[in-house]
Amino acid sequence: MNEPDFITALRALPLHPGARGLQDDCAVLEIGGETLILTHDMMAEGTHFREGADMADVAWKLVATNLSDLAAKGAEPVGVLLGHMLGRDDARFLEGLHAALCEFNVPLLGGDTVAGTGLRSFGLTAIGRATHTPVPPRSGAKAGDHLYLTGPVGRAMLGFEGVPEHLAAFNRPSPRLAEGQALAPYVSAMMDVSDGLLLDSWRMAQASGLTFALDRQAIPVADPARLDDCIRWGDDYELLFTAPAAAALPVPAHRIGIVTSVAAAPLLLGDEPLSDPATLGFQHG
Amino acid sequence: MNEPDFITALRALPLHPGARGLQDDCAVLEIGGETLILTHDMMAEGTHFREGADMADVAWKLVATNLSDLAAKGAEPVGVLLGHMLGRDDARFLEGLHAALCEFNVPLLGGDTVAGTGLRSFGLTAIGRATHTPVPPRSGAKAGDHLYLTGPVGRAMLGFEGVPEHLAAFNRPSPRLAEGQALAPYVSAMMDVSDGLLLDSWRMAQASGLTFALDRQAIPVADPARLDDCIRWGDDYELLFTAPAAAALPVPAHRIGIVTSVAAAPLLLGDEPLSDPATLGFQHG
Repeated sequence: MNEPDFITALRALPLHPGARGLQDDCAVLEIGGETLILTHDMMAEGTHFREGADMADVAWKLVATNLSDLAAKGAEPVGVLLGHMLGRDDARFLEGLHAALCEFNVPLLGGDTVAGTGLRSFGLTAIGRATHTPVPPRSGAKAGDHLYLTGPVGRAMLGFEGVPEHLAAFNRPSPRLAEGQALAPYVSAMMDVSDGLLLDSWRMAQASGLTFALDRQAIPVADPARLDDCIRWGDDYELLFTAPAAAALPVPAHRIGIVTSVAAAPLLLGDEPLSDPATLGFQHG
Repeated sequence: MNEPDFITALRALPLHPGARGLQDDCAVLEIGGETLILTHDMMAEGTHFREGADMADVAWKLVATNLSDLAAKGAEPVGVLLGHMLGRDDARFLEGLHAALCEFNVPLLGGDTVAGTGLRSFGLTAIGRATHTPVPPRSGAKAGDHLYLTGPVGRAMLGFEGVPEHLAAFNRPSPRLAEGQALAPYVSAMMDVSDGLLLDSWRMAQASGLTFALDRQAIPVADPARLDDCIRWGDDYELLFTAPAAAALPVPAHRIGIVTSVAAAPLLLGDEPLSDPATLGFQHG
Protein backbone atom coordinates (compact mmCIF):
# COMPACT_ATOMS: atom_id res chain seq x y z
CA MET A 1 0.00 0.00 0.00
CA ASN A 2 1.43 3.44 -0.80
CA GLU A 3 1.31 6.39 1.57
CA PRO A 4 -1.72 8.21 0.09
CA ASP A 5 -3.76 4.99 0.09
CA PHE A 6 -2.73 4.19 3.64
CA ILE A 7 -3.67 7.66 4.87
CA THR A 8 -7.00 7.47 3.05
CA ALA A 9 -7.66 4.18 4.84
CA LEU A 10 -6.69 5.70 8.19
CA ARG A 11 -9.34 8.37 7.66
CA ALA A 12 -11.98 5.63 7.77
CA LEU A 13 -10.95 4.66 11.32
CA PRO A 14 -12.42 6.24 14.46
CA LEU A 15 -10.82 9.69 14.53
CA HIS A 16 -10.58 12.16 17.38
CA PRO A 17 -12.16 15.53 16.45
CA GLY A 18 -8.73 17.03 17.15
CA ALA A 19 -7.24 14.89 14.39
CA ARG A 20 -8.75 17.41 11.93
CA GLY A 21 -9.61 14.53 9.61
CA LEU A 22 -5.87 13.74 9.25
CA GLN A 23 -5.83 16.65 6.80
CA ASP A 24 -3.50 18.82 8.86
CA ASP A 25 0.06 18.57 10.16
CA CYS A 26 -0.75 18.27 13.85
CA ALA A 27 -3.55 17.22 16.15
CA VAL A 28 -5.23 19.88 18.25
CA LEU A 29 -6.40 18.70 21.65
CA GLU A 30 -8.46 20.97 23.85
CA ILE A 31 -7.98 19.96 27.44
CA GLY A 32 -9.03 21.83 30.52
CA GLY A 33 -8.60 25.45 29.50
CA GLU A 34 -5.57 24.79 27.29
CA THR A 35 -5.08 23.76 23.68
CA LEU A 36 -2.36 21.20 23.10
CA ILE A 37 -0.72 20.60 19.74
CA LEU A 38 0.54 17.06 19.09
CA THR A 39 2.67 15.74 16.27
CA HIS A 40 4.63 12.56 15.59
CA ASP A 41 7.26 12.17 12.88
CA MET A 42 9.52 9.23 12.16
CA MET A 43 12.92 9.06 10.48
CA ALA A 44 14.03 5.83 8.83
CA GLU A 45 17.58 4.93 7.80
CA GLY A 46 17.91 4.75 4.02
CA THR A 47 14.79 6.88 3.55
CA HIS A 48 15.26 9.97 5.72
CA PHE A 49 18.95 9.71 6.48
CA ARG A 50 21.95 8.03 4.88
CA GLU A 51 23.52 4.95 6.45
CA GLY A 52 26.72 6.86 7.21
CA ALA A 53 25.02 9.95 8.59
CA ASP A 54 26.31 11.54 11.77
CA MET A 55 23.84 10.29 14.37
CA ALA A 56 24.08 13.61 16.20
CA ASP A 57 22.64 15.30 13.11
CA VAL A 58 19.94 12.63 12.85
CA ALA A 59 18.85 13.23 16.45
CA TRP A 60 18.90 17.00 15.97
CA LYS A 61 16.82 16.74 12.82
CA LEU A 62 14.33 14.39 14.47
CA VAL A 63 13.69 17.05 17.11
CA ALA A 64 13.80 19.98 14.67
CA THR A 65 11.36 18.52 12.13
CA ASN A 66 8.78 17.78 14.80
CA LEU A 67 9.18 21.20 16.40
CA SER A 68 8.78 22.73 12.95
CA ASP A 69 5.26 21.27 12.85
CA LEU A 70 4.58 22.93 16.21
CA ALA A 71 6.02 26.20 14.88
CA ALA A 72 3.49 26.19 12.05
CA LYS A 73 0.73 26.07 14.65
CA GLY A 74 2.17 28.94 16.67
CA ALA A 75 2.79 26.52 19.52
CA GLU A 76 5.31 26.73 22.33
CA PRO A 77 7.03 23.34 22.86
CA VAL A 78 6.16 21.56 26.10
CA GLY A 79 8.10 18.32 25.75
CA VAL A 80 8.98 15.38 23.54
CA LEU A 81 8.70 11.59 23.73
CA LEU A 82 11.46 9.66 21.95
CA GLY A 83 11.19 6.25 20.28
CA HIS A 84 14.79 5.11 19.93
CA MET A 85 16.17 2.01 18.24
CA LEU A 86 19.59 1.16 19.65
CA GLY A 87 22.54 0.83 17.29
CA ARG A 88 25.80 2.41 16.17
CA ASP A 89 26.92 5.73 17.59
CA ASP A 90 24.25 6.02 20.25
CA ALA A 91 26.53 8.35 22.19
CA ARG A 92 26.59 10.68 19.18
CA PHE A 93 22.82 10.43 18.94
CA LEU A 94 22.58 11.53 22.57
CA GLU A 95 24.92 14.46 21.92
CA GLY A 96 22.74 15.71 19.08
CA LEU A 97 19.59 15.14 21.09
CA HIS A 98 21.03 17.06 24.02
CA ALA A 99 22.11 19.93 21.78
CA ALA A 100 18.69 20.20 20.13
CA LEU A 101 16.74 20.03 23.40
CA CYS A 102 18.92 22.83 24.79
CA GLU A 103 18.84 24.93 21.63
CA PHE A 104 15.05 24.82 21.37
CA ASN A 105 14.46 24.83 25.11
CA VAL A 106 12.30 21.72 25.19
CA PRO A 107 12.62 18.91 27.76
CA LEU A 108 12.32 15.16 27.35
CA LEU A 109 9.06 13.73 28.67
CA GLY A 110 9.67 10.03 28.09
CA GLY A 111 9.64 7.42 25.39
CA ASP A 112 10.88 3.95 24.61
CA THR A 113 14.17 2.29 23.72
CA VAL A 114 14.20 -0.90 21.71
CA ALA A 115 16.72 -3.29 20.31
CA GLY A 116 16.62 -3.58 16.55
CA THR A 117 18.22 -5.47 13.74
CA GLY A 118 19.10 -4.03 10.36
CA LEU A 119 18.18 -0.52 9.33
CA ARG A 120 17.05 1.74 12.11
CA SER A 121 14.16 4.07 12.62
CA PHE A 122 13.35 6.65 15.23
CA GLY A 123 10.15 8.38 16.22
CA LEU A 124 9.46 11.53 18.10
CA THR A 125 6.23 12.89 19.50
CA ALA A 126 6.31 16.61 20.19
CA ILE A 127 3.77 18.26 22.42
CA GLY A 128 3.19 21.99 22.39
CA ARG A 129 0.85 24.51 23.86
CA ALA A 130 -1.04 26.79 21.49
CA THR A 131 -0.15 30.42 22.10
CA HIS A 132 -3.09 31.61 20.02
CA THR A 133 -6.51 30.21 19.19
CA PRO A 134 -7.96 29.44 16.79
CA VAL A 135 -4.87 27.42 15.89
CA PRO A 136 -3.72 28.22 12.34
CA PRO A 137 -4.94 25.47 10.01
CA ARG A 138 -3.46 24.30 6.74
CA SER A 139 -6.80 24.98 5.06
CA GLY A 140 -7.81 28.51 5.97
CA ALA A 141 -6.55 30.60 3.04
CA LYS A 142 -9.06 33.09 1.62
CA ALA A 143 -9.26 34.52 -1.89
CA GLY A 144 -7.44 37.84 -1.88
CA ASP A 145 -4.99 36.79 0.84
CA HIS A 146 -1.31 37.23 0.19
CA LEU A 147 1.07 34.27 0.35
CA TYR A 148 4.29 34.60 2.33
CA LEU A 149 7.46 32.70 3.10
CA THR A 150 9.64 33.46 6.14
CA GLY A 151 12.99 32.85 4.41
CA PRO A 152 14.80 31.40 1.41
CA VAL A 153 14.38 27.86 0.14
CA GLY A 154 17.15 25.75 -1.39
CA ARG A 155 19.65 26.10 1.44
CA ALA A 156 19.13 22.51 2.56
CA MET A 157 19.60 21.33 -1.03
CA LEU A 158 22.94 23.10 -1.27
CA GLY A 159 23.92 21.71 2.12
CA PHE A 160 23.03 18.20 1.00
CA GLU A 161 25.27 18.76 -2.03
CA GLY A 162 28.14 19.72 0.25
CA VAL A 163 28.30 23.50 -0.09
CA PRO A 164 30.07 24.41 3.17
CA GLU A 165 28.06 27.48 4.09
CA HIS A 166 24.81 25.54 3.77
CA LEU A 167 25.76 22.29 5.53
CA ALA A 168 24.06 23.42 8.72
CA ALA A 169 20.82 24.17 6.88
CA PHE A 170 20.64 20.52 5.86
CA ASN A 171 22.10 18.83 8.94
CA ARG A 172 20.89 21.10 11.72
CA PRO A 173 17.74 22.91 10.61
CA SER A 174 16.06 25.42 12.90
CA PRO A 175 12.31 25.36 13.35
CA ARG A 176 10.81 28.84 13.11
CA LEU A 177 9.25 28.71 16.58
CA ALA A 178 9.45 32.40 17.43
CA GLU A 179 8.17 33.39 14.00
CA GLY A 180 5.28 30.92 14.19
CA GLN A 181 4.17 32.22 17.57
CA ALA A 182 4.39 35.83 16.42
CA LEU A 183 2.51 35.10 13.20
CA ALA A 184 -0.28 32.87 14.55
CA PRO A 185 -2.70 35.74 15.31
CA TYR A 186 -2.24 37.20 11.81
CA VAL A 187 -2.39 34.25 9.43
CA SER A 188 -5.32 32.54 7.75
CA ALA A 189 -3.34 29.35 7.02
CA MET A 190 0.17 28.21 7.85
CA MET A 191 2.44 25.18 7.39
CA ASP A 192 6.13 24.44 7.35
CA VAL A 193 7.88 23.85 4.03
CA SER A 194 9.29 20.40 4.68
CA ASP A 195 8.71 18.77 1.29
CA GLY A 196 9.50 21.66 -1.03
CA LEU A 197 7.89 25.01 -1.68
CA LEU A 198 5.90 23.98 -4.74
CA LEU A 199 4.55 20.75 -3.31
CA ASP A 200 3.64 22.31 0.04
CA SER A 201 2.06 25.33 -1.69
CA TRP A 202 0.04 22.93 -3.81
CA ARG A 203 -1.10 21.07 -0.68
CA MET A 204 -2.10 24.26 1.11
CA ALA A 205 -3.99 25.49 -1.95
CA GLN A 206 -5.79 22.16 -2.27
CA ALA A 207 -6.66 22.16 1.44
CA SER A 208 -8.20 25.60 1.05
CA GLY A 209 -9.98 24.76 -2.21
CA LEU A 210 -8.34 27.74 -3.91
CA THR A 211 -5.48 28.58 -6.25
CA PHE A 212 -2.14 29.97 -5.17
CA ALA A 213 -0.55 32.16 -7.84
CA LEU A 214 3.20 32.32 -7.20
CA ASP A 215 5.38 35.12 -8.45
CA ARG A 216 8.60 33.39 -9.59
CA GLN A 217 10.72 36.49 -9.20
CA ALA A 218 9.57 37.12 -5.65
CA ILE A 219 10.52 33.74 -4.25
CA PRO A 220 13.68 33.98 -2.13
CA VAL A 221 16.07 31.18 -3.09
CA ALA A 222 19.54 30.24 -1.95
CA ASP A 223 20.83 30.01 -5.55
CA PRO A 224 18.92 32.13 -8.11
CA ALA A 225 20.61 30.25 -10.98
CA ARG A 226 18.85 27.11 -9.78
CA LEU A 227 15.46 28.49 -8.85
CA ASP A 228 13.58 25.51 -10.25
CA ASP A 229 15.57 23.13 -8.07
CA CYS A 230 15.35 25.34 -5.00
CA ILE A 231 11.56 25.49 -5.09
CA ARG A 232 11.27 21.71 -5.46
CA TRP A 233 13.72 20.57 -2.81
CA GLY A 234 12.55 19.95 0.74
CA ASP A 235 14.06 20.10 4.23
CA ASP A 236 14.17 23.88 4.57
CA TYR A 237 11.55 24.31 7.32
CA GLU A 238 10.66 27.90 6.55
CA LEU A 239 7.04 28.82 7.26
CA LEU A 240 4.58 29.25 4.40
CA PHE A 241 1.48 31.21 5.27
CA THR A 242 -1.37 33.29 3.98
CA ALA A 243 -2.66 36.49 5.53
CA PRO A 244 -5.07 39.26 4.55
CA ALA A 245 -3.46 41.82 2.25
CA ALA A 246 -3.81 44.52 4.90
CA ALA A 247 -2.15 42.53 7.69
CA ALA A 248 0.76 44.31 9.39
CA LEU A 249 2.99 41.29 9.91
CA PRO A 250 5.06 41.21 13.10
CA VAL A 251 8.09 39.51 11.52
CA PRO A 252 9.84 39.98 8.18
CA ALA A 253 8.48 37.75 5.44
CA HIS A 254 8.65 37.55 1.66
CA ARG A 255 5.42 38.02 -0.22
CA ILE A 256 5.61 35.34 -2.93
CA GLY A 257 2.11 35.26 -4.36
CA ILE A 258 -1.60 35.69 -3.94
CA VAL A 259 -4.61 33.48 -3.30
CA THR A 260 -7.33 33.46 -5.94
CA SER A 261 -10.55 31.64 -6.67
CA VAL A 262 -10.16 28.33 -8.45
CA ALA A 263 -8.29 28.75 -11.73
CA ALA A 264 -6.74 26.33 -14.21
CA ALA A 265 -4.85 24.50 -11.47
CA PRO A 266 -4.37 24.66 -7.70
CA LEU A 267 -1.01 26.27 -8.34
CA LEU A 268 0.18 28.85 -10.86
CA LEU A 269 3.90 29.53 -11.19
CA GLY A 270 3.83 32.78 -13.11
CA ASP A 271 1.70 31.81 -16.13
CA GLU A 272 2.33 28.13 -15.79
CA PRO A 273 -0.49 26.00 -14.29
CA LEU A 274 0.81 23.17 -12.10
CA SER A 275 -1.64 20.42 -11.36
CA ASP A 276 0.38 17.23 -10.98
CA PRO A 277 1.90 17.01 -7.50
CA ALA A 278 4.31 14.30 -8.70
CA THR A 279 6.27 16.98 -10.57
CA LEU A 280 6.44 19.44 -7.70
CA GLY A 281 8.83 18.20 -5.09
CA PHE A 282 10.01 15.69 -2.65
CA GLN A 283 7.65 12.83 -1.81
CA HIS A 284 9.60 10.41 0.33
CA GLY A 285 6.79 8.66 2.10
CA MET B 1 25.20 1.06 23.93
CA ASN B 2 22.77 -1.25 25.75
CA GLU B 3 19.34 -0.18 26.94
CA PRO B 4 20.17 0.48 30.62
CA ASP B 5 23.20 2.60 29.65
CA PHE B 6 21.16 4.52 27.09
CA ILE B 7 18.39 5.24 29.57
CA THR B 8 20.93 6.32 32.18
CA ALA B 9 22.37 8.74 29.63
CA LEU B 10 18.89 10.04 28.78
CA ARG B 11 18.42 10.92 32.46
CA ALA B 12 21.27 13.42 32.13
CA LEU B 13 19.37 15.37 29.45
CA PRO B 14 16.95 18.21 30.23
CA LEU B 15 13.90 16.39 31.61
CA HIS B 16 10.37 17.65 32.07
CA PRO B 17 9.22 17.35 35.72
CA GLY B 18 6.42 15.15 34.41
CA ALA B 19 9.01 12.69 33.09
CA ARG B 20 9.37 11.47 36.69
CA GLY B 21 13.10 11.08 36.13
CA LEU B 22 12.40 8.46 33.44
CA GLN B 23 11.88 6.06 36.36
CA ASP B 24 8.21 5.43 35.65
CA ASP B 25 6.19 3.92 32.80
CA CYS B 26 4.48 7.10 31.67
CA ALA B 27 4.88 10.85 31.74
CA VAL B 28 2.42 12.87 33.79
CA LEU B 29 1.60 16.28 32.37
CA GLU B 30 -0.51 18.73 34.32
CA ILE B 31 -2.17 21.13 31.94
CA GLY B 32 -5.22 23.34 32.08
CA GLY B 33 -6.56 21.82 35.30
CA GLU B 34 -6.28 18.30 33.90
CA THR B 35 -3.62 15.64 34.29
CA LEU B 36 -2.58 13.93 31.07
CA ILE B 37 -0.76 10.62 30.95
CA LEU B 38 1.59 10.09 28.00
CA THR B 39 3.38 6.97 26.87
CA HIS B 40 5.23 5.85 23.74
CA ASP B 41 6.12 2.26 22.92
CA MET B 42 7.70 0.86 19.79
CA MET B 43 7.50 -2.60 18.26
CA ALA B 44 10.30 -3.82 15.99
CA GLU B 45 10.18 -6.76 13.60
CA GLY B 46 12.47 -9.55 14.73
CA THR B 47 12.50 -8.21 18.29
CA HIS B 48 8.88 -7.72 19.29
CA PHE B 49 7.15 -9.68 16.56
CA ARG B 50 8.11 -12.48 14.20
CA GLU B 51 8.64 -11.79 10.52
CA GLY B 52 5.62 -13.88 9.57
CA ALA B 53 3.32 -12.44 12.21
CA ASP B 54 -0.22 -11.50 11.29
CA MET B 55 0.01 -7.71 10.94
CA ALA B 56 -3.49 -7.34 12.37
CA ASP B 57 -2.20 -8.86 15.61
CA VAL B 58 0.85 -6.59 15.52
CA ALA B 59 -1.32 -3.49 15.21
CA TRP B 60 -3.65 -4.69 17.97
CA LYS B 61 -0.73 -5.38 20.27
CA LEU B 62 0.85 -2.00 19.53
CA VAL B 63 -2.34 -0.33 20.74
CA ALA B 64 -2.91 -2.72 23.64
CA THR B 65 0.60 -2.48 25.10
CA ASN B 66 0.50 1.30 25.13
CA LEU B 67 -3.00 1.38 26.63
CA SER B 68 -1.78 -1.06 29.27
CA ASP B 69 0.66 1.61 30.45
CA LEU B 70 -2.26 4.02 30.71
CA ALA B 71 -4.26 1.40 32.61
CA ALA B 72 -1.53 1.18 35.24
CA LYS B 73 -1.97 4.91 35.83
CA GLY B 74 -5.74 4.68 36.15
CA ALA B 75 -6.05 6.74 33.00
CA GLU B 76 -8.89 6.91 30.53
CA PRO B 77 -7.57 6.84 26.93
CA VAL B 78 -7.98 10.08 24.97
CA GLY B 79 -6.29 9.21 21.67
CA VAL B 80 -3.27 7.72 19.96
CA LEU B 81 -0.68 8.89 17.44
CA LEU B 82 0.67 6.18 15.11
CA GLY B 83 4.14 5.97 13.58
CA HIS B 84 3.73 3.50 10.71
CA MET B 85 6.35 2.07 8.38
CA LEU B 86 4.73 0.88 5.16
CA GLY B 87 5.25 -2.71 4.05
CA ARG B 88 3.57 -6.08 3.59
CA ASP B 89 -0.03 -6.60 4.65
CA ASP B 90 -0.80 -3.00 5.45
CA ALA B 91 -4.48 -3.74 4.91
CA ARG B 92 -4.27 -6.38 7.66
CA PHE B 93 -2.47 -3.88 9.88
CA LEU B 94 -5.35 -1.45 9.37
CA GLU B 95 -7.89 -4.17 10.22
CA GLY B 96 -6.16 -4.90 13.51
CA LEU B 97 -5.76 -1.22 14.27
CA HIS B 98 -9.43 -0.61 13.58
CA ALA B 99 -10.46 -3.53 15.78
CA ALA B 100 -8.29 -2.38 18.68
CA LEU B 101 -9.41 1.25 18.49
CA CYS B 102 -13.05 0.12 18.55
CA GLU B 103 -12.54 -2.49 21.28
CA PHE B 104 -10.82 -0.04 23.61
CA ASN B 105 -12.88 2.95 22.53
CA VAL B 106 -9.94 5.19 21.68
CA PRO B 107 -9.70 7.36 18.54
CA LEU B 108 -6.76 8.10 16.29
CA LEU B 109 -5.29 11.58 16.76
CA GLY B 110 -2.63 11.56 14.07
CA GLY B 111 0.84 10.31 13.33
CA ASP B 112 3.20 9.67 10.48
CA THR B 113 3.59 7.18 7.66
CA VAL B 114 7.03 6.46 6.23
CA ALA B 115 8.54 4.28 3.58
CA GLY B 116 11.06 1.83 4.91
CA THR B 117 13.43 -0.81 3.70
CA GLY B 118 14.17 -4.06 5.47
CA LEU B 119 12.74 -4.92 8.86
CA ARG B 120 9.92 -2.73 10.03
CA SER B 121 9.14 -0.90 13.21
CA PHE B 122 6.10 0.91 14.48
CA GLY B 123 5.56 3.40 17.24
CA LEU B 124 2.50 4.48 19.11
CA THR B 125 1.99 7.37 21.48
CA ALA B 126 -1.02 6.97 23.74
CA ILE B 127 -2.53 9.91 25.58
CA GLY B 128 -4.86 9.45 28.52
CA ARG B 129 -6.57 11.53 31.12
CA ALA B 130 -5.94 10.68 34.76
CA THR B 131 -9.17 9.70 36.50
CA HIS B 132 -7.56 10.01 39.93
CA THR B 133 -4.75 12.10 41.36
CA PRO B 134 -2.17 11.61 42.63
CA VAL B 135 -1.46 9.33 39.69
CA PRO B 136 -0.29 5.90 40.93
CA PRO B 137 3.50 5.75 40.68
CA ARG B 138 5.71 2.72 40.24
CA SER B 139 7.58 3.71 43.37
CA GLY B 140 4.99 4.25 46.10
CA ALA B 141 4.86 0.90 47.91
CA LYS B 142 4.98 1.11 51.73
CA ALA B 143 6.24 -1.51 54.19
CA GLY B 144 3.23 -3.50 55.35
CA ASP B 145 1.32 -3.05 52.09
CA HIS B 146 -0.01 -6.14 50.41
CA LEU B 147 0.99 -7.02 46.85
CA TYR B 148 -1.71 -7.94 44.35
CA LEU B 149 -2.12 -9.18 40.80
CA THR B 150 -5.35 -8.75 38.80
CA GLY B 151 -5.18 -12.10 37.02
CA PRO B 152 -3.07 -15.10 36.07
CA VAL B 153 0.30 -14.92 34.38
CA GLY B 154 1.60 -17.41 31.82
CA ARG B 155 -1.34 -17.27 29.44
CA ALA B 156 0.65 -15.33 26.83
CA MET B 157 3.48 -17.89 27.12
CA LEU B 158 1.09 -20.75 26.40
CA GLY B 159 -0.42 -18.77 23.53
CA PHE B 160 3.04 -18.17 22.08
CA GLU B 161 3.63 -21.92 22.27
CA GLY B 162 0.45 -22.54 20.31
CA VAL B 163 -2.02 -23.73 22.96
CA PRO B 164 -5.33 -22.90 21.23
CA GLU B 165 -7.22 -21.54 24.24
CA HIS B 166 -4.41 -19.10 25.00
CA LEU B 167 -3.62 -17.81 21.50
CA ALA B 168 -5.69 -14.68 22.08
CA ALA B 169 -3.80 -13.89 25.28
CA PHE B 170 -0.60 -13.67 23.25
CA ASN B 171 -1.88 -12.17 20.01
CA ARG B 172 -4.67 -9.90 21.22
CA PRO B 173 -3.99 -8.91 24.84
CA SER B 174 -6.45 -6.71 26.71
CA PRO B 175 -5.20 -3.80 28.78
CA ARG B 176 -6.88 -3.71 32.20
CA LEU B 177 -8.29 -0.22 31.72
CA ALA B 178 -11.44 -0.58 33.82
CA GLU B 179 -9.53 -2.29 36.63
CA GLY B 180 -6.80 0.38 36.60
CA GLN B 181 -9.34 3.19 36.86
CA ALA B 182 -11.21 1.45 39.66
CA LEU B 183 -8.00 0.68 41.57
CA ALA B 184 -6.19 4.03 41.20
CA PRO B 185 -7.68 5.60 44.35
CA TYR B 186 -6.73 2.54 46.45
CA VAL B 187 -3.19 1.65 45.42
CA SER B 188 0.16 2.90 46.68
CA ALA B 189 2.02 1.72 43.55
CA MET B 190 0.92 0.12 40.30
CA MET B 191 2.40 -1.09 37.00
CA ASP B 192 1.49 -3.49 34.25
CA VAL B 193 3.24 -6.86 34.07
CA SER B 194 4.66 -6.64 30.56
CA ASP B 195 8.09 -8.22 31.11
CA GLY B 196 7.21 -11.01 33.52
CA LEU B 197 5.92 -11.08 37.08
CA LEU B 198 9.29 -11.60 38.77
CA LEU B 199 11.15 -8.95 36.80
CA ASP B 200 8.41 -6.36 37.12
CA SER B 201 8.00 -7.12 40.85
CA TRP B 202 11.75 -6.66 41.25
CA ARG B 203 11.56 -3.32 39.45
CA MET B 204 8.65 -2.09 41.55
CA ALA B 205 10.42 -3.16 44.76
CA GLN B 206 13.61 -1.41 43.67
CA ALA B 207 11.69 1.73 42.75
CA SER B 208 10.16 1.77 46.23
CA GLY B 209 13.42 0.92 48.00
CA LEU B 210 11.76 -2.03 49.71
CA THR B 211 11.50 -5.81 49.46
CA PHE B 212 8.57 -7.68 47.98
CA ALA B 213 8.07 -11.10 49.54
CA LEU B 214 6.10 -13.26 47.11
CA ASP B 215 4.06 -16.27 48.22
CA ARG B 216 4.69 -18.87 45.49
CA GLN B 217 1.49 -20.75 46.20
CA ALA B 218 -0.66 -17.66 45.97
CA ILE B 219 0.45 -16.59 42.49
CA PRO B 220 -2.25 -17.35 39.91
CA VAL B 221 -0.67 -19.05 36.88
CA ALA B 222 -2.08 -20.45 33.67
CA ASP B 223 -0.25 -23.77 34.12
CA PRO B 224 0.61 -24.70 37.74
CA ALA B 225 2.99 -27.43 36.55
CA ARG B 226 5.13 -24.68 34.98
CA LEU B 227 4.93 -22.03 37.64
CA ASP B 228 8.57 -21.03 37.26
CA ASP B 229 8.09 -20.37 33.56
CA CYS B 230 4.79 -18.57 34.00
CA ILE B 231 6.22 -16.07 36.47
CA ARG B 232 9.18 -15.28 34.19
CA TRP B 233 7.38 -14.90 30.88
CA GLY B 234 6.09 -11.50 29.79
CA ASP B 235 3.28 -10.17 27.63
CA ASP B 236 0.43 -10.83 30.05
CA TYR B 237 -0.52 -7.23 30.86
CA GLU B 238 -2.18 -7.92 34.18
CA LEU B 239 -1.82 -5.15 36.76
CA LEU B 240 0.60 -5.54 39.66
CA PHE B 241 -0.08 -3.23 42.58
CA THR B 242 0.40 -2.61 46.25
CA ALA B 243 -2.24 -1.36 48.65
CA PRO B 244 -2.62 -0.99 52.41
CA ALA B 245 -3.60 -4.25 54.09
CA ALA B 246 -6.94 -2.80 55.14
CA ALA B 247 -7.92 -1.55 51.66
CA ALA B 248 -11.32 -2.77 50.46
CA LEU B 249 -10.45 -3.29 46.83
CA PRO B 250 -13.15 -2.48 44.24
CA VAL B 251 -12.19 -5.30 41.85
CA PRO B 252 -11.16 -8.92 42.40
CA ALA B 253 -7.40 -9.36 42.76
CA HIS B 254 -5.05 -12.07 43.98
CA ARG B 255 -2.96 -11.25 47.01
CA ILE B 256 0.46 -12.64 46.08
CA GLY B 257 2.76 -11.20 48.72
CA ILE B 258 3.66 -8.47 51.13
CA VAL B 259 5.97 -5.45 51.18
CA THR B 260 8.67 -5.39 53.84
CA SER B 261 11.64 -3.28 54.83
CA VAL B 262 14.84 -4.03 52.99
CA ALA B 263 15.82 -7.68 53.44
CA ALA B 264 18.38 -9.94 51.78
CA ALA B 265 17.25 -8.93 48.29
CA PRO B 266 14.65 -6.70 46.62
CA LEU B 267 12.61 -9.83 45.95
CA LEU B 268 11.91 -12.95 47.98
CA LEU B 269 10.17 -15.90 46.32
CA GLY B 270 9.13 -17.89 49.34
CA ASP B 271 12.47 -18.33 51.16
CA GLU B 272 14.57 -17.68 48.08
CA PRO B 273 16.21 -14.25 47.77
CA LEU B 274 16.31 -13.00 44.16
CA SER B 275 18.72 -10.19 43.46
CA ASP B 276 19.92 -10.62 39.86
CA PRO B 277 17.35 -9.22 37.44
CA ALA B 278 18.98 -11.12 34.57
CA THR B 279 17.50 -14.34 35.97
CA LEU B 280 14.00 -13.01 36.44
CA GLY B 281 12.35 -12.57 33.10
CA PHE B 282 12.11 -11.17 29.71
CA GLN B 283 14.50 -8.33 28.84
CA HIS B 284 14.09 -7.65 25.17
CA GLY B 285 15.30 -4.08 25.00
